[in-house]
Amino acid sequence: MNVLALSHSNGIAARISKYLDIPLIRAQRKKFPDGEIYVRIPQALDDTTIIVQSLEYPQSENFIELLECIEAARGLNTQRIITIIPYLAYARQDKRFLEGEPITVKIILKTLESLGVDALITVDIHQERSLKEWLSIPARNVLPYKEIASYFKNKLESPLVLAPDKGALKRAKLVAEQLNTDFDYNEKKRDRITGEVTVLPRKINVENRDIIIVDDIISTGGTITLATKSALENGANKVYVACTHALLINGALDRIFSAGATEVVATDTVKSPISKISVAPTLANALKEFI
Amino acid sequence: MNVLALSHSNGIAARISKYLDIPLIRAQRKKFPDGEIYVRIPQALDDTTIIVQSLEYPQSENFIELLECIEAARGLNTQRIITIIPYLAYARQDKRFLEGEPITVKIILKTLESLGVDALITVDIHQERSLKEWLSIPARNVLPYKEIASYFKNKLESPLVLAPDKGALKRAKLVAEQLNTDFDYNEKKRDRITGEVTVLPRKINVENRDIIIVDDIISTGGTITLATKSALENGANKVYVACTHALLINGALDRIFSAGATEVVATDTVKSPISKISVAPTLANALKEFI
Repeated sequence: MNVLALSHSNGIAARISKYLDIPLIRAQRKKFPDGEIYVRIPQALDDTTIIVQSLEYPQSENFIELLECIEAARGLNTQRIITIIPYLAYARQDKRFLEGEPITVKIILKTLESLGVDALITVDIHQERSLKEWLSIPARNVLPYKEIASYFKNKLESPLVLAPDKGALKRAKLVAEQLNTDFDYNEKKRDRITGEVTVLPRKINVENRDIIIVDDIISTGGTITLATKSALENGANKVYVACTHALLINGALDRIFSAGATEVVATDTVKSPISKISVAPTLANALKEFI
Repeated sequence: MNVLALSHSNGIAARISKYLDIPLIRAQRKKFPDGEIYVRIPQALDDTTIIVQSLEYPQSENFIELLECIEAARGLNTQRIITIIPYLAYARQDKRFLEGEPITVKIILKTLESLGVDALITVDIHQERSLKEWLSIPARNVLPYKEIASYFKNKLESPLVLAPDKGALKRAKLVAEQLNTDFDYNEKKRDRITGEVTVLPRKINVENRDIIIVDDIISTGGTITLATKSALENGANKVYVACTHALLINGALDRIFSAGATEVVATDTVKSPISKISVAPTLANALKEFI
């Protein structure tokens, strides 16, 4: 068995290699002057090959690199390819929101399967049902919310876990269960006089609570910024923010911090200055079911 | 029937639409702030859809855009998708030159077929056999050398068509036949005293001839520059350069012109300042066999 690190494994391949005592191979990768991506696996492979590549930015090139590595591994006659994609790009377009749009997650998943991937493990995919919908190979979606909860354990006073919207409630619940505390999701409220929009928990008062806002992705951070500001204005003690995938586009971090957040943390599925929590142990555990 | 222009159709889709009197649709395309490519086909499709996209730079993104468009077209229930790829990137790695490398042309072709392309037309692919090797759908490789020859007709005195190496000889032959003149390919010659390398035709003297150097791709232009310099030093009258795909990397054009070339021309499979010859009429002709 081998673990293959591609250019955007973010150290996860090496950590898995260490946890499970599987030899690590680093794939060679370069970009030709015309822009084409070149990949080479520099040594022979065992029966089972685990390939690790995040589809963080530049996601289109990273996807091509992954496809090349899968084809190269097939060429080296490995018998079984398990692909680990810590961040699976193009997963948010999981249906046709408008007619004439593609289902991009279908393209990513079907292409991987058609090139010969035998099993897939990903982290906190936008909709877990996408895996069942578009893959016939075994696939597993692991969640890092236990690790995120551990990060905050004994750090907070009277913590309240908040989902910025109803879609993230399941995620907030997982963190809350680990911290033995309550959770809720935000609803939009509009001030009748000023017209100002605030977001506040549906049922629970934030006053004097330490808030943890939990979501799968921080993109531009708009929703998180509003949630942070609203919680503090309504008497929350401190606001912490946690997510799995820190895309952090267009100054997201500055926006969130200037709204008053005390700390913002994420996992290492995407490289960022707040990627403090590694998903490698969780992924190593999930891998055990496959090997 | 519809012709769909993607972001890198280079005007070819619109020209085909005009020649064959098929309605043109321009796909919507944008890049999300996180780098993901978004595509939408803005209207209903007829039974047969012809999609045009060059895989010029940025080739990895352009490939994803093409895959998205194919999936979107399938979603609109078109019955048959014919894909025209004027420049097919990743085609030069058509075998495993070193162990552990992928066959990239296989990845591109197999992915297109697995997503539901029914027929493929491309222009001057590096090795025509790649199409037979990796596709089971109908595929056609068209060559633009008649059009290239027409461009030079009555412009040159005593023309001699030269391939910069043996691999391009077939291409030089096609141009020479149209111009009713002779052709040859260059061989490397090393001066016994100075050690200087020159390249000269195997059999034919270049003296007082107008030379046309013909190749499929101009990348960095190194080979072409040497061929231009050698021909002029050995008494050629003028040197013209023609290729299908003008990638023109790292100052290629300045290198070739400063070696003394009179003119450098290419087709519009790749956008460039020398893309003076359109492959659209040739592609429209080839399409007739499929529709």
